Amino acid sequence: MAELHLLSPAGFRAWGVYAGIKSRQAPDVGLLISDSAASAAALFTTNKVVAAPGKVGREHILSGQSRGAGANSGNANACTGAQGERDTKQMCELAAAVASCKRNEIIPASTGIIGHFLPMDKVEQGIAEAGKYLGSSQEHALLFADTILTTDTRRKTAAAEFKVNKQRVTIAGVCKGSGMIGPRLAPAGGKHATMLAYLTTDAKVAPPLLGRLLKSASDSSFNAVTIDDHTSTNDMALLLASGASGVSIKGGKDLQSFVKALNEVCRSLAYQIASDGEGATKVVVITVRKAASASDAMLMARAIANSPLVKCAMNGNDPNWGRIVSAAGMTNAKFEPNKAHLTLQGATVFTRGRPAEFEREALSAALTFHEVQVVLTCNLGKHEATCWTCDLSKDYVTINADYHT
Amino acid sequence: MAELHLLSPAGFRAWGVYAGIKSRQAPDVGLLISDSAASAAALFTTNKVVAAPGKVGREHILSGQSRGAGANSGNANACTGAQGERDTKQMCELAAAVASCKRNEIIPASTGIIGHFLPMDKVEQGIAEAGKYLGSSQEHALLFADTILTTDTRRKTAAAEFKVNKQRVTIAGVCKGSGMIGPRLAPAGGKHATMLAYLTTDAKVAPPLLGRLLKSASDSSFNAVTIDDHTSTNDMALLLASGASGVSIKGGKDLQSFVKALNEVCRSLAYQIASDGEGATKVVVITVRKAASASDAMLMARAIANSPLVKCAMNGNDPNWGRIVSAAGMTNAKFEPNKAHLTLQGATVFTRGRPAEFEREALSAALTFHEVQVVLTCNLGKHEATCWTCDLSKDYVTINADYHT
Repeated sequence: MAELHLLSPAGFRAWGVYAGIKSRQAPDVGLLISDSAASAAALFTTNKVVAAPGKVGREHILSGQSRGAGANSGNANACTGAQGERDTKQMCELAAAVASCKRNEIIPASTGIIGHFLPMDKVEQGIAEAGKYLGSSQEHALLFADTILTTDTRRKTAAAEFKVNKQRVTIAGVCKGSGMIGPRLAPAGGKHATMLAYLTTDAKVAPPLLGRLLKSASDSSFNAVTIDDHTSTNDMALLLASGASGVSIKGGKDLQSFVKALNEVCRSLAYQIASDGEGATKVVVITVRKAASASDAMLMARAIANSPLVKCAMNGNDPNWGRIVSAAGMTNAKFEPNKAHLTLQGATVFTRGRPAEFEREALSAALTFHEVQVVLTCNLGKHEATCWTCDLSKDYVTINADYHT
Repeated sequence: MAELHLLSPAGFRAWGVYAGIKSRQAPDVGLLISDSAASAAALFTTNKVVAAPGKVGREHILSGQSRGAGANSGNANACTGAQGERDTKQMCELAAAVASCKRNEIIPASTGIIGHFLPMDKVEQGIAEAGKYLGSSQEHALLFADTILTTDTRRKTAAAEFKVNKQRVTIAGVCKGSGMIGPRLAPAGGKHATMLAYLTTDAKVAPPLLGRLLKSASDSSFNAVTIDDHTSTNDMALLLASGASGVSIKGGKDLQSFVKALNEVCRSLAYQIASDGEGATKVVVITVRKAASASDAMLMARAIANSPLVKCAMNGNDPNWGRIVSAAGMTNAKFEPNKAHLTLQGATVFTRGRPAEFEREALSAALTFHEVQVVLTCNLGKHEATCWTCDLSKDYVTINADYHT
């Protein structure tokens, strides 16, 4: 597993370069190119303020076919009006020239500051340069992964494989996301998240099925991670299926294997986003069980994950469970405290409307671990949801208040 | 105006004492007593996790009559099961003994840590002691105001008066609230916020009308302030009308005067909560104008107010308007960036889908003021809403992470 990467699925090449868009010297313009027309599915932010690449990408994905992606970091090209859209189309045009395809076969993405026009001279130079060094090695994959990072402190990658008969199928992905993370991704034409995720596979999957699989995988991964619950203007997840393995996924056990691998990759990437949330010292995994409905379960999990009071308690290793139970009670979800049960790191702290006895110091020590498990059992039904977040630290405030735009 | 206080309306007495419930030595048990049966209206939290005083208070208010309130700080008596309810009833019983009335004529309230049983010996001693020193002076009013404080750094009081013919009518109030502030108050029997507000008036108002007036005033004041959007288990607003002025409020111009004064008092109290939010260095006043509906306007104002990214930018005096526009686009409210216009401290930063030119350093300097005005004009309708919040500082994290429960 360790050696699998974004370009392990056959049929893809990538590279990234520093074109001078980011203030710090790090790669900021990248290309991910499919050697031939790939089946493609993408999800976009549901924010009503959609950045130019989101508007253009939603049109380009409609064909269900793509030759790849052009991306930049350091500038979101959001709230930039008609000029912004022209710039994004030009970015696609430049990437298309590299791939020898049409402009609408390229899915664009940008991430960074909102409200500034793209420096098109740098974008043009960057894409031309990246185009010269495209390749399929791990180095190429990691450089592309680095290209999309902004306030992230580390790159995020995941991959999984399975076999159909004796033929290996690989699914791989990279993503970025650390702040302005509250993705609510939906298909183009429906609603629309700056989390960016790029997924590749060498399986052959028809576009409509690919779209449904991406949506389903995203709902329990990208759409279940929140750092600040602030849905971005630029969020996007793109899945490209080259078909180069020769394995066609249509149904039955093969489809199950594909779904399992895709879910595994997406969930790993989402977990890595929570783990690398701005200022995070730990991941907080919130699971709501036995809820009356799946949406109720997710509503409560998200309310807990988004409470600054809960997040600060986690930062302070404070088993202040009243903040958790009261967050669950805030939503429109069905919740009866007298039936509920709450554990922190496996220790029962609240049960059926009343406080439970627990070793405060031991639990506080257990809350210092890198991963904290919060499990709220509602005893109202059979539905479950898991949401990932991180703690709220003074570093979060430093990152978002002290560093000026 | 300066000399008006909670006990200026004739017919009320109060006092507060330190009974040892709070960890720091400050008043924590108080009584507000009406000399005779007052018309009463109250709103309670809509959290499904309702503290014992909320459960009991919702029953007691049903008669529309009350002889007053018993309150403690330092302990919320929330998530304490049947024992908690028995303790609250006992608290009412003790206050009723002081007022020579029935238990259900007392409206109880508690604020503080969730999940601990009330120390009833201290409550009993505190109420007995407070009962001995009841009075109507400004000192008495201010001590009661102090009694309900928790993480607040200062007391919150407001008052207004008007005349009907030559007779003066006074409306006054005190409140508390600094953290776990995202009140969603509603009448008993409907839904149910730890903000506590106590309002007194010497007007004579029938309970059903009093209830409608309190709900309406609360919607544009207490229900429009958010520090952390965490609706508490204990939020409550209580309005007692003694009738001692001899002025009866039923309709017409007198009602308009009453509504104006009540709104003024409630809005002042709500503003003071935002101003004293945990770790706050400034108040942020968010007004959404020309929205398609009133609920759309409030949805967007709240989304802006609750974004940690916006709040950190405010802390850093950073005119990062992209965070504000994208927060407005996150909700289900109708919003078209191409029609919208955004000002910060009166400076246009975004207009009709595009960035506006502005003096970054001058605006950053203007953002250091104690009050920041954010005005988003949607140009989609004629509805408006205002929401108050504060910035998110490192001190907020210190208060909620470093100080253990």
